[in-house]
Amino acid sequence: MELPLEFQRIARYFAPLAGEGALGLKDDAAVLAAVPGQLVLSADAMVEGVHFPAGEAPALIARKLLRTNLSDLAAMGARPLGYLLTIAVPRATDEAWFAGFAAGLAADQAEFGLALLGGDSTATPGPVSVSLTILGTAHAVLRRQGARPGDEIWVSGTIGDGALGLLALRGEVADPDGFLVSRYRLPQPRLELGRRLVGIAHAAMDISDGLVQDLSHLCRAAGLGAVVEAARVPASAAALAAGREHQVLRLTGGDDYELLFAASAAAAAAVTAAAAACGTPVMRIGRFRYAPRCVTVLDEQGGAIALERGGWSHFDTAEP
Amino acid sequence: MELPLEFQRIARYFAPLAGEGALGLKDDAAVLAAVPGQLVLSADAMVEGVHFPAGEAPALIARKLLRTNLSDLAAMGARPLGYLLTIAVPRATDEAWFAGFAAGLAADQAEFGLALLGGDSTATPGPVSVSLTILGTAHAVLRRQGARPGDEIWVSGTIGDGALGLLALRGEVADPDGFLVSRYRLPQPRLELGRRLVGIAHAAMDISDGLVQDLSHLCRAAGLGAVVEAARVPASAAALAAGREHQVLRLTGGDDYELLFAASAAAAAAVTAAAAACGTPVMRIGRFRYAPRCVTVLDEQGGAIALERGGWSHFDTAEP
Repeated sequence: MELPLEFQRIARYFAPLAGEGALGLKDDAAVLAAVPGQLVLSADAMVEGVHFPAGEAPALIARKLLRTNLSDLAAMGARPLGYLLTIAVPRATDEAWFAGFAAGLAADQAEFGLALLGGDSTATPGPVSVSLTILGTAHAVLRRQGARPGDEIWVSGTIGDGALGLLALRGEVADPDGFLVSRYRLPQPRLELGRRLVGIAHAAMDISDGLVQDLSHLCRAAGLGAVVEAARVPASAAALAAGREHQVLRLTGGDDYELLFAASAAAAAAVTAAAAACGTPVMRIGRFRYAPRCVTVLDEQGGAIALERGGWSHFDTAEP
Repeated sequence: MELPLEFQRIARYFAPLAGEGALGLKDDAAVLAAVPGQLVLSADAMVEGVHFPAGEAPALIARKLLRTNLSDLAAMGARPLGYLLTIAVPRATDEAWFAGFAAGLAADQAEFGLALLGGDSTATPGPVSVSLTILGTAHAVLRRQGARPGDEIWVSGTIGDGALGLLALRGEVADPDGFLVSRYRLPQPRLELGRRLVGIAHAAMDISDGLVQDLSHLCRAAGLGAVVEAARVPASAAALAAGREHQVLRLTGGDDYELLFAASAAAAAAVTAAAAACGTPVMRIGRFRYAPRCVTVLDEQGGAIALERGGWSHFDTAEP
C-alpha cells in the first residue's frame, strides 16, 4: 500500500529534521525524557499576507517563524530545546516549496541548536498559515514584571529596522543594500544575551509590536511609567538614511525582535559586560519612574514626541 | 494608553483559561516547574472548509481541536497537562465568536483536566485556521511499534461514525437523532483506556485517518501484516442503519478518534478488565501475522474485501 502524499512528505522533508524524542515523527506524539530545570513554552503563528508577503521564499517563512519563537525564549533567558510545527498550505503547493521550507528549518536548527519534535500538515483553501510551539529550558527565567523605579531601560541591537524593512519591501523606503529588508525577513533572536541577563536584569521582553507598545507592557507589569530619550534609541545606518520623517515609525513599528530590559543603574557594568561577552550591542535609552502615563518619549529638546499609536497588533492594522 | 484589541481579547477570553505556569498569558512564554515523568507532546491543526464546515459553531471548533490532540495523548497512554493554541481568524470576527470559542475550551478543560499555557491570535484574509500543541505526562508510554505476530487487534468504541457523520452533515446519510454528526463533531478521546493499557498493549495509536490506513501504520512499524474480520468491527446502530453500502467507508473513513491497539492473546482478560474499569467498550477485530500485504479485511465468507484506498489524508481528498 503506497503511503499518501502527506506521509511521503513527512518522511522526505520533515523526518530528517526530527530530534531525539520525536520518534521519527512516526508516532502519535513525541516523548521527552526528564526535562532539566524549568520548561519554557511559547507559540506563534504566521499567515501569508499578514506576517509575510505572498510568494515569500519558503525558507524565509520557516526561518522567520522559528526565529520569532526563539526570540520569546531569548526574552525569558531560556535555552532552545525543540519545537512542534503545523503548516496549512494550498493543495497545489509543489515539492520545491516543501524542500525550501525544510531547508530553512534545517539551517536555523543548526544555527540555534534545536530539533523538530512533531507537528501536522494540512491543506487549506486559503493563504499559507504556519504555527510553531517552541520549547526551551532554564534554571531561572527573566520575566516582564519586576522593573523598579529608577531602573534603566535597555535595548539590544538597533530599533526600527523591521518596520522600515516592510516599507522597503513595498518600495516606500530606499534600501540599497537590502539591510532593512533582511532585518524584516530574518530577525536575530538574542538568545545568548537573554541567558546572560538572568540574574542581572529586573525585567525583560522582546520587541515584536514596536518599542513603545512593548515598553508599555513592562510599565503595566511594574505599575510604573517610563521615559525614553529618542536620541538614545539606537538606529542602524540604513534606518537613519531612511530619513527623520520615519522617526516615529522607528519608535512604534514592529518586527524588531530585539531585547528590551530593565536593570538598576548599579548593574550597568554587568549589563555591558554580558553584552560584550556575546558580541551583542546594547544601549540605555531611558528610565522607569513613578508616572501617570505609561511611556513618554522625549526629543532632543526635552519635549514629548506625539505618538499616534503605541505600536501595532495584527488586528488593528492593514495587511502588508 | 488603551490596549489594542488583540490584547483585550486575550485578557477577556483567554486569560481566564490560563493554568499555573501560563503567567496570566502576560509574559513572553509559559514556565513549567519540573515536569513529573516523561513529557509527551503532539500538535494538530484544523482549517475551516477542510476539518470543519464553514460556519461551524466556535465552541465545537475549539472542542474538536482540543479533543483530536487529547486523542494523541490517549494513544500514548499519557495524562493531559496543558496546551498552547494559535488561532487565525478573519478581521471581522465578532466578540460572540471568541466568547463561544473560549466557552468550548473551558468546557473541555474542565472535562479533561488541563489548562491553557500560551498561544497567539492573529488575523487572516482566509479561512479560520487553528493549531494546538498539547502536553501530557507519562511514566511509560504506548508506542505504535511493538505489535508481534499473533497479537490480537483491538479497537475501542464504534468505528466509522466520524466519516458517516460528515456525510450526514452534507445530507447524504440519514441521521435522525444526530448521533453520527455528534461523533464527527465531538470525538471522545479515550484517555483513561489509554493509560490503563500501558503495560498491557504491545502497540497502540488513535484512529484519525481511517481504520485500515491507521492499522497499516501499526503493520509497517512492526514489519507485519494484519487480517481483520469486517463482521467483528464494531458499528453503532446509527452506522448500521446507514446501510451496508457504507461498509467500506466505515473501514476506511477518518475522524473516529478511537484507540487501535495490539495485545497478546494471553492479555485478552487484562484488556477487557482495563476497558471495563473505565467503561469503554473494546472489541477484538483481527490479528497480526507474517504477511506480504499490509492489511487484509475479510468478509463473512472469508473473502478479501476490495478497498480502493486505505484511508484518507487532507492532501488526497476533496474538502467537506
